[in-house]
Amino acid sequence: MTYCVGLKLNQGLVFMSDTLTNAGIDNVNTNKKMFFWSNKNERSVVLLTSGNLATSQATINLINEAIDNPNNDNDNILKTKSMFQVARIVGKILRNISNEYSSDGQVGENPYSSTLILGGQIVGQEHRLFLIYPEGNFIEASEDQSFFQIGETKYGKPIIVRALEKDSNFGDAIKLLLVSFDSTMKANVSVGMPIDVCTLKKDDFELNNQIRFEKNDPYFEKISNSWGEALKKSIKELPPFDFK
Amino acid sequence: MTYCVGLKLNQGLVFMSDTLTNAGIDNVNTNKKMFFWSNKNERSVVLLTSGNLATSQATINLINEAIDNPNNDNDNILKTKSMFQVARIVGKILRNISNEYSSDGQVGENPYSSTLILGGQIVGQEHRLFLIYPEGNFIEASEDQSFFQIGETKYGKPIIVRALEKDSNFGDAIKLLLVSFDSTMKANVSVGMPIDVCTLKKDDFELNNQIRFEKNDPYFEKISNSWGEALKKSIKELPPFDFK
Repeated sequence: MTYCVGLKLNQGLVFMSDTLTNAGIDNVNTNKKMFFWSNKNERSVVLLTSGNLATSQATINLINEAIDNPNNDNDNILKTKSMFQVARIVGKILRNISNEYSSDGQVGENPYSSTLILGGQIVGQEHRLFLIYPEGNFIEASEDQSFFQIGETKYGKPIIVRALEKDSNFGDAIKLLLVSFDSTMKANVSVGMPIDVCTLKKDDFELNNQIRFEKNDPYFEKISNSWGEALKKSIKELPPFDFK
Repeated sequence: MTYCVGLKLNQGLVFMSDTLTNAGIDNVNTNKKMFFWSNKNERSVVLLTSGNLATSQATINLINEAIDNPNNDNDNILKTKSMFQVARIVGKILRNISNEYSSDGQVGENPYSSTLILGGQIVGQEHRLFLIYPEGNFIEASEDQSFFQIGETKYGKPIIVRALEKDSNFGDAIKLLLVSFDSTMKANVSVGMPIDVCTLKKDDFELNNQIRFEKNDPYFEKISNSWGEALKKSIKELPPFDFK
C-alpha cells in the first residue's frame, strides 16, 4: 500500500509520500514514489504514484522516453503550453499502460491500475495540482478542495480536513502532513518510512527543497510522541459527558 | 455504510453505533443497529450490526424466534452457559443466513454479508466482547485489543488507538467515541446521526443506560466544534519544522 498527499497552498505546492511497497506481506520493499522533472527557470513538475508498481514505473519510463525523443514534442511534458496539457499526457500514458496489460494475456489477482497526483508550475502561470485516475482522466485542486490523497487515505484524512489552512507556510504544512502520515502508519503497517517531502515555491523553479525523513528521524519521532500526548490532553480538556 | 464501536473497559462495556443505512445514495434511511437482550439480574447481551441490512435483520429475527421457541434451548442466547456460546449461536445464525441467499437464486451486486460486534455478561462471569465475521467465526477482545470497530472504521481509528484507556470511566469513553464518530462523519456522508449509545456496567444487569444523540444535539455539537479547535491548537503547539 501507499500514502501520498499533495497540497495546494497560496505559497506553492507541498508533496509528501511514503516509500513502502509490497507484493504480499512477504515481499516488502522501499521504492521512491515521488518523481521530478524541470526546465530550469521555466517549469517544475512533480508526480506521486500509488497502486500497481509496474504500472507506475512504466508510466515514469514512458514520460522520460518521450522527453528524450527529439522527433516528437506532442508527448513531452517539458514542452506543453500548460499544466493541464501535462496532466493530459500523463493521463494518456497511464491509461495506455493499464489497458495494455488488462486487455490480453495473463490476468493477475490485482488490478493493473495506478492513481497519481501531479503538480507543478509553468513560468507566468498559476501553480496547479491534479489527481489522475487510473482511467487517465483527472480533476484539479480548487478553492474548495485544496488537497489530494492517494493510497491508504482514510486514517490520515480527518486531521487534514480539520487543520489545513491555505495560507500556511511550508514548515507548518509539512508538520501537519507528518501528523497525518503518523496517524496512518500507526494504523496500517503497509505504509512506512522513509517519508519523502518536496515543495515547489510559487514562481521559484528551483527544485532544491527535497527532504527525506528516515526511520527514527528525531523530528518525526518528536512529532509522533508529542501528537499522542496532545491528543490525550485535548480529549481530556473537552467538556465532560455527564454520564449518569 | 455504518460505523459501530464496542469497547471493553475495566468498568464494563460501551457500545456506540450510527443509524444511517443506504441502498444507493438515493435510498437513505435511519435504522437502529444496536440490539439488546436480557434476563433480569442474570445476563445482558448487546449486538451491533453492519453490512447487509437484510442479513442483519434476519439474524436479529432468528435470534428472537429461537428465544421464543420453548422446545429448543440449543439456539437460545438467554440460556447458554457462557458468552462464548452466545457468540457461537449468533455466528451460526449469521453464517446460515448469508449462505442461504448466496448459494442460489438471484445474485445481487452487493454481498449478503454482515459483520457484528457482540458483548455482554453472564452473572458470576467476566464481561466479554466479540467481533463476529460474516463467515460466523469470531474473535474476542483481549488485554492487547480492547476495542472492535465495524463498518467505516478507518477515519475514526487513529484517535481510539491513541487515546483509549481501559480504566476510563464511561463518561470519558463516550466522549472519546463521539470524537471518533465525529471524525468519521466529517469524512464520510454514509455515516450519520442519530448516534446510539449503550453501556453495560460490570456486574450490573440493568440495561437502563441507553442514550441517543439526535442531530443537532448540543453536547455533540460542542464536542465537534471544540475538537476542531483543539486539533488546530495542538498542531500549532507541536514543535515547528525548521523549513529552510
